[in-house]
Amino acid sequence: MDTIQSNNYPIYFNDSITQLANFVKQGNYTKVFILTDENTGEHCLPLVQEQLGDTFDLIEVNAGEESKTIDFCIGIWKMLIDFEADRGSLLINLGGGVITDMGGFVASTYKRGIDFVQVPTTLLAQVDASVGGKTGVDVDGIKNIIGTFTQPKAVFMVADFLQTLPARQILSGLAEMLKHGLICDAAYWDELKTSDLTVPTAALVYRSVQIKNEVVIDDPHEKGIRKALNFGHTVGHAVETYSLLNDEDHLSHGEAIAIGMICEAWLSNKKIGLPDAELAEITSVLSNLYPKHHIAADCHTELYSLMQKDKKNQGGKINCTLLTHIGQYSVDNICTEDELCDSLKYYAAL
Amino acid sequence: MDTIQSNNYPIYFNDSITQLANFVKQGNYTKVFILTDENTGEHCLPLVQEQLGDTFDLIEVNAGEESKTIDFCIGIWKMLIDFEADRGSLLINLGGGVITDMGGFVASTYKRGIDFVQVPTTLLAQVDASVGGKTGVDVDGIKNIIGTFTQPKAVFMVADFLQTLPARQILSGLAEMLKHGLICDAAYWDELKTSDLTVPTAALVYRSVQIKNEVVIDDPHEKGIRKALNFGHTVGHAVETYSLLNDEDHLSHGEAIAIGMICEAWLSNKKIGLPDAELAEITSVLSNLYPKHHIAADCHTELYSLMQKDKKNQGGKINCTLLTHIGQYSVDNICTEDELCDSLKYYAAL
Repeated sequence: MDTIQSNNYPIYFNDSITQLANFVKQGNYTKVFILTDENTGEHCLPLVQEQLGDTFDLIEVNAGEESKTIDFCIGIWKMLIDFEADRGSLLINLGGGVITDMGGFVASTYKRGIDFVQVPTTLLAQVDASVGGKTGVDVDGIKNIIGTFTQPKAVFMVADFLQTLPARQILSGLAEMLKHGLICDAAYWDELKTSDLTVPTAALVYRSVQIKNEVVIDDPHEKGIRKALNFGHTVGHAVETYSLLNDEDHLSHGEAIAIGMICEAWLSNKKIGLPDAELAEITSVLSNLYPKHHIAADCHTELYSLMQKDKKNQGGKINCTLLTHIGQYSVDNICTEDELCDSLKYYAAL
Repeated sequence: MDTIQSNNYPIYFNDSITQLANFVKQGNYTKVFILTDENTGEHCLPLVQEQLGDTFDLIEVNAGEESKTIDFCIGIWKMLIDFEADRGSLLINLGGGVITDMGGFVASTYKRGIDFVQVPTTLLAQVDASVGGKTGVDVDGIKNIIGTFTQPKAVFMVADFLQTLPARQILSGLAEMLKHGLICDAAYWDELKTSDLTVPTAALVYRSVQIKNEVVIDDPHEKGIRKALNFGHTVGHAVETYSLLNDEDHLSHGEAIAIGMICEAWLSNKKIGLPDAELAEITSVLSNLYPKHHIAADCHTELYSLMQKDKKNQGGKINCTLLTHIGQYSVDNICTEDELCDSLKYYAAL
């Protein structure tokens, strides 16, 4: 697997921790910080520490989406101030999407921007969050409402980190991989649906990163083609936010996106001619992989109101990325409240 | 006075409020917001409202540097969410440096960036904050520690706004104008020192913006030549922050920078040969314009520790921009704690 080049930064797949150590050494940074969470600190940090020695200061936050808020950012900024981090400092974000998104935002705004690199430790962060230069945190439960477009200096993919992940976390990342197939590569979708996905192979992860990178490299600020990646995310983000605010054991990102993809495949079928057989196939593959989630009919209004807050919309209209076929996306499809609620009913009736 | 072109955005000097109204009209924005403070809302907003009508929503914060914090940003982000501001929205920052710096930061991070324009209403904001694409807010009293480099879409200079400013606010902006002469243009310095500066003429303001723009246009991210603008700011920022934290009637930005320029002119004389006569001239002009401020000898350690937190430093060394002559700057002069304390003693002994 060759190193992938993104917008002025490399994505490493081989000997990545050694590559990270070399990067730090050659960067001549005045100070090096690792941002991580308690879980990652336990499982992944020792491997990194082995190579980096004690050349860094550690900043640890609680694990979980609840940490991805502006208040946690303030805490991290204050720690950087206390550690006397200057503009020549490096922040290494070692963790899942919460850490890479939030750490990217913290670094891109501290003293108007210091260098950062991503070391994603979950499948979701490897195939999604760590590539593309989006940083973000939540305010009032609205996901990634605050953030910047800022490219990391490098991304380091470590296959070993995936071995110890709980099954539910693998499933969360898998949803984005399936999405990459659905929007751009029918052959990859076919390969995924017939593979053992308990722990996806390095080659499958690599292909997913390749697809995501091809999409983002020409559209770093999400003006056009990058909208392809939003398939499943209009409904999915609303379902995820609702669950985060209301359910004790809330949906993971991927679980919510899987629901979103089923709903938006239904919209694709109704609005732009995704064939019935392909809708049935998508529904069946996703329903078999992901446990059914109960969405009460009386929360449709609230879900719709969450969709309206989505960053992707303009002028109050809800803008979906849909599919004309498996492997072919179509952007800027405006969906009405009735259509979106009907798509939720389709999911509920499965 | 011609419109000045900066990094992909125009700076208007003639019929600026009409220009603003045209800009808003032609921009086809989904929503328009004006961020302002209570004072500006009273004195300047009516002029803008005359031209814009009721096509905007108003976001008003308390006046004063105390408002320029990340907590106020959170409040503004939440209002934008409540107003359902989308990516096609425009934020008009109408106010002094607090409003233009903070509004720029809020806009550059809301949904990963919406358009904003600057309508500076103080002399300081016109000649300094609104040009150059620096946004920022304070955390824990550390000035502009969080921010981005993001260019506005346009800047609108309204000379009328300066007519009603209190004398102390004029003096605050004047310090940056005097700095522009000191670092780049001896003839402009000579003109300033012999002018009636009660309300600087539009031509003097224009020249100051021209100088600042020439410096920032080639160095948007402060990697080199832009450091010229830091003359007076290493000592000045520390004195300003200290005063903000300790004095009830704290120093204005310009008052602090005037002190900083006297100290750094002294350092220029001691370290890189600024002639004695020029040091005497700078000291005399600034001392005549600005009231003497008492800096107790026992706060030198604390001032030095504030200087160490300055964004400009790397590797723990304090990096000053000094003068070889009036009109000629020199960047990257490392100063020791003793030298910096001695420069404060020079000011104290005046």
